[in-house]
Amino acid sequence: MILAGFGAFGSVVGRFLVANGVETTVLDTDSDHVELMRRLGIKTFYGDASREELLRSAGAEEAKVLIVSPATLDATLAVIRTARKHFPHLRILARAKTRVDAYDVLEAGADRVYRTSFDTSLRTGVDAMRDLGFGAYQAHRAAQWFRRYDENAWRELAGIRSDDAHYESRARESVRLLEKLLRAEFHTVRESDEAAWTTDSLRRDAGGEKQ
Amino acid sequence: MILAGFGAFGSVVGRFLVANGVETTVLDTDSDHVELMRRLGIKTFYGDASREELLRSAGAEEAKVLIVSPATLDATLAVIRTARKHFPHLRILARAKTRVDAYDVLEAGADRVYRTSFDTSLRTGVDAMRDLGFGAYQAHRAAQWFRRYDENAWRELAGIRSDDAHYESRARESVRLLEKLLRAEFHTVRESDEAAWTTDSLRRDAGGEKQ
Repeated sequence: MILAGFGAFGSVVGRFLVANGVETTVLDTDSDHVELMRRLGIKTFYGDASREELLRSAGAEEAKVLIVSPATLDATLAVIRTARKHFPHLRILARAKTRVDAYDVLEAGADRVYRTSFDTSLRTGVDAMRDLGFGAYQAHRAAQWFRRYDENAWRELAGIRSDDAHYESRARESVRLLEKLLRAEFHTVRESDEAAWTTDSLRRDAGGEKQ
Repeated sequence: MILAGFGAFGSVVGRFLVANGVETTVLDTDSDHVELMRRLGIKTFYGDASREELLRSAGAEEAKVLIVSPATLDATLAVIRTARKHFPHLRILARAKTRVDAYDVLEAGADRVYRTSFDTSLRTGVDAMRDLGFGAYQAHRAAQWFRRYDENAWRELAGIRSDDAHYESRARESVRLLEKLLRAEFHTVRESDEAAWTTDSLRRDAGGEKQ
């Protein structure tokens, strides 16, 4: 397993995998991190993980999984493109900060994309529901459901995205996507019909706007 | 429920709670967001959520839960301090970007603190384990265990923190905390004794350094 980027996100993934005995090689551009990891005996390389030679030195030919979590979107996309091109067998898991960035990460060739704060947001929401008096089972079910719903919604909106994405700023695209999601979700809450809580309402809503 | 900050983190919490029928008031400083929310009929106020009057207008006296997720640490701390002082009955859930920031958030008076990327990192780790051939049950158990372990470790390190925290930069403190965690975790992996995988090794390690 190769882990590119050992910041707040990557370091938790790395600690978790090392703790479970997974052989891990770290690539990072923070010299304090590199020095620390080496002192502890973790195989670590300093440098730009989008360089083919560095990935090769890190064992990209034998590795099965590459986790990509540098600090910036540009660095993330560069690593994915190099890895996809030169080491096509690698399973690439990458993180993205926002919903809009996540589209770019997927287009660059990642197999899976993780929005940095998504799961933590959901756990915060579950705890808030508990504090407001909902039962534990209900709150957890709601979160499971919402994760599936959001994943599907995000994929459907990717199709809609291509029409307008090149004509607007990222901030504007982000607000537009959020509006589509909220409108679809409101339909459902207003209809109070749990079965309607699917991406059908999203499709209907998006379709309606295009007519 | 009052939600201060409707960015990438807050918007997922907000969508999830609204979708579950929780009455939510949003405070935000992004005028695009405020305009959108109002258009959709969500009670939203534009402005600095660390102002007592704004929290009062948003219904802080009747609300049960306040979720704090502005873009910066300073803004987060300011909101928590105002809320804690003027609306002591509120249950305050706040997010922090890093392990070090999380200490400040707790000291400012939050009831619970959520590190932005923690849960998503763990899910990424679980998926990587699955891709590497671990079973689903084993990967999920490992994540449950790691979450509890990390929470305890973080709390124990808070005690150690106070000695040195004022004498070093945040970046240095962050690397030092990471080193303590990794050293403790390595003890365990090397000893290959699952029962030792507790914060005992952390305590031992931290104690050892002080002698």
